Amino acid sequence: MLKPGSTIGILGGGQLGRMLALAAAPLGLKTHVLCPDADSPAFQVCDAHVCAAYDDFDALDRFAAGVDVVTYEFENVPLATAERLSMHVPVLPGAKALAITQDRLLEKSFVRDLGIGTAPFASVDDLPGLEVAVAAIGLPAVLKTRRFGYDGKGQVTLRPGDDVAGAWEAIGRQPAILEGFVPFVREVSIVAARRADDAFAAFDVTENVHRDHILHRSTVPATLQADAMRDARRIACQIASALDYVGVFAVELFVVANQGVESVLVNEIAPRVHNSGHWTQDGAVTSQFEQHVRAIAGWPLGDARRLGRAEMVNLIGDDVEQWLPLLAEPGTHLHLYGKGEARPGRKMGHVNRLWIDEKAVPGC
Amino acid sequence: MLKPGSTIGILGGGQLGRMLALAAAPLGLKTHVLCPDADSPAFQVCDAHVCAAYDDFDALDRFAAGVDVVTYEFENVPLATAERLSMHVPVLPGAKALAITQDRLLEKSFVRDLGIGTAPFASVDDLPGLEVAVAAIGLPAVLKTRRFGYDGKGQVTLRPGDDVAGAWEAIGRQPAILEGFVPFVREVSIVAARRADDAFAAFDVTENVHRDHILHRSTVPATLQADAMRDARRIACQIASALDYVGVFAVELFVVANQGVESVLVNEIAPRVHNSGHWTQDGAVTSQFEQHVRAIAGWPLGDARRLGRAEMVNLIGDDVEQWLPLLAEPGTHLHLYGKGEARPGRKMGHVNRLWIDEKAVPGC
Repeated sequence: MLKPGSTIGILGGGQLGRMLALAAAPLGLKTHVLCPDADSPAFQVCDAHVCAAYDDFDALDRFAAGVDVVTYEFENVPLATAERLSMHVPVLPGAKALAITQDRLLEKSFVRDLGIGTAPFASVDDLPGLEVAVAAIGLPAVLKTRRFGYDGKGQVTLRPGDDVAGAWEAIGRQPAILEGFVPFVREVSIVAARRADDAFAAFDVTENVHRDHILHRSTVPATLQADAMRDARRIACQIASALDYVGVFAVELFVVANQGVESVLVNEIAPRVHNSGHWTQDGAVTSQFEQHVRAIAGWPLGDARRLGRAEMVNLIGDDVEQWLPLLAEPGTHLHLYGKGEARPGRKMGHVNRLWIDEKAVPGC
Repeated sequence: MLKPGSTIGILGGGQLGRMLALAAAPLGLKTHVLCPDADSPAFQVCDAHVCAAYDDFDALDRFAAGVDVVTYEFENVPLATAERLSMHVPVLPGAKALAITQDRLLEKSFVRDLGIGTAPFASVDDLPGLEVAVAAIGLPAVLKTRRFGYDGKGQVTLRPGDDVAGAWEAIGRQPAILEGFVPFVREVSIVAARRADDAFAAFDVTENVHRDHILHRSTVPATLQADAMRDARRIACQIASALDYVGVFAVELFVVANQGVESVLVNEIAPRVHNSGHWTQDGAVTSQFEQHVRAIAGWPLGDARRLGRAEMVNLIGDDVEQWLPLLAEPGTHLHLYGKGEARPGRKMGHVNRLWIDEKAVPGC
């Protein structure tokens, strides 16, 4: 168990690492960040940083020597990196969570083996295998590389009549998975935390709208029937236990409706804090970032209650040029990531809004 | 006017500077800190720091070259330091606010000249002058050095029969002021912000309880009659305008009652964010730290509305040993300052609590 004055090491220096560092500070914890990118947003707010590649074992050893626990802000941490560091310090969440969530096939098989529903899926190792999968699952379907894809990269949608061989080329002939389309009525996610002693706390289910494969807006409370909400929570708890998970994670879910009855299917698991949980910074008693720090520190989990109706809207690319009008909106909380260039599709920040109730707060 | 990506320079590296840096980051602003103390809490969370004395002009020049505006987290910034820096970059709040608030006599005279009530006071330059002041004001009274006192240091209480010459020795025979006791029923403060264009926003009046001259607990809403509350707000606005103030400041006030009618007298002005405003981090739409950053950046002031009933309790010295039980209290927000040694009387952190209403927040 850490104490105030301890140091957390974060692999990865993007906005998630930055926001973790900002959440660790009020808890009296220092943060060190390791990342190969010299312009890492997280470098601006941490106590010390190491700018090195993830396979630079000398740098990893130096990094480990200065921290009391290591965590990460992106799931594609090389397993060799995690292993090297765990020779010196605990790495949380642990290797099991990393190994499973880095590979879409392993992840879907793991979920299915827990008796939890997912989209229909099949492993694809070559073009003949893809053709067999297409025949079994049907089209439309999505062909995704097993590893390294995110925000719509590393995947191709196949519709009836499309060139299957062309799709296989388009994903670079990497080991892949074919996922059947899910006729979802809504997309939701659940962000939750687990501690080593199995203590568990979930935030309210979040409703998510994507644009061009990137999250656009998250809202709470989600529109979802009560039974399906309970299922989402149970699924998150089950997954966390089965992964021996320590920290915050997110489960993205599809909502499907059958004769008016809603149910949820697991889409993806992220072994980290998640974009769909940013609303918690201003809309819950404890933010997902503070919750993750508490969990990996071995500290009591914070109160996850929602404060009211909340939404988060991402600022992608030149959306960020609206920063000044956004600052002028009463009650709109601006969160910018300290990035220089507002490239198309780049997450530059987000805004959170909270409505506690419709009555004005009594003034003095 | 700053833009996201600009850099704020902070003179002083204590907890106030630390919390300013943490508030600047989500607005996309970098922070550099200059302080002579190598263990400065603010050094742990800023983009760059300079560990140098405030009269090291070379260091000041280097510091100024790297920032777009300078502010400070303690009022006793040497005027020569502020002047040197303002050759290169804007220093906000400006020299007028610093000069007046650094000297208790200048400050009280300034307030009195605005027609605002204070404790009775007289200038004291020598022992005969002290004896004249005692005769004029009466005892009990407090003898305070004009400069450099805080949290009870640099002052001596004189009661009838006390050794006046001894009191003069006890404060080191420094230029001083004698303040008559105020029979206050309560102590309150108002924390507010002003922009260069005279835009003004005040947080709700805060009720404060001190222990051993150090703030112990702050609560909102304050218990105070409506007219006195309006006066407090008007006083803050008047003081800010008269000082051409830019940024957040605090006015500490005594509440006196005359035949059941409450009124306020100004006690002290702090040209900075203030301990009695920490509740705003979790209890107001915008924290005092974010508000100060907005003001000095030339950005729109944030919504200062209170979210509910709130309190802050300081963690002084070994109070901080309660950090683990405090972390376990649902809804209690822990704010630690990253200091090493929990010396008696040392501000190690604080906790904020918020009660939005007495009903439980509806869950999912």
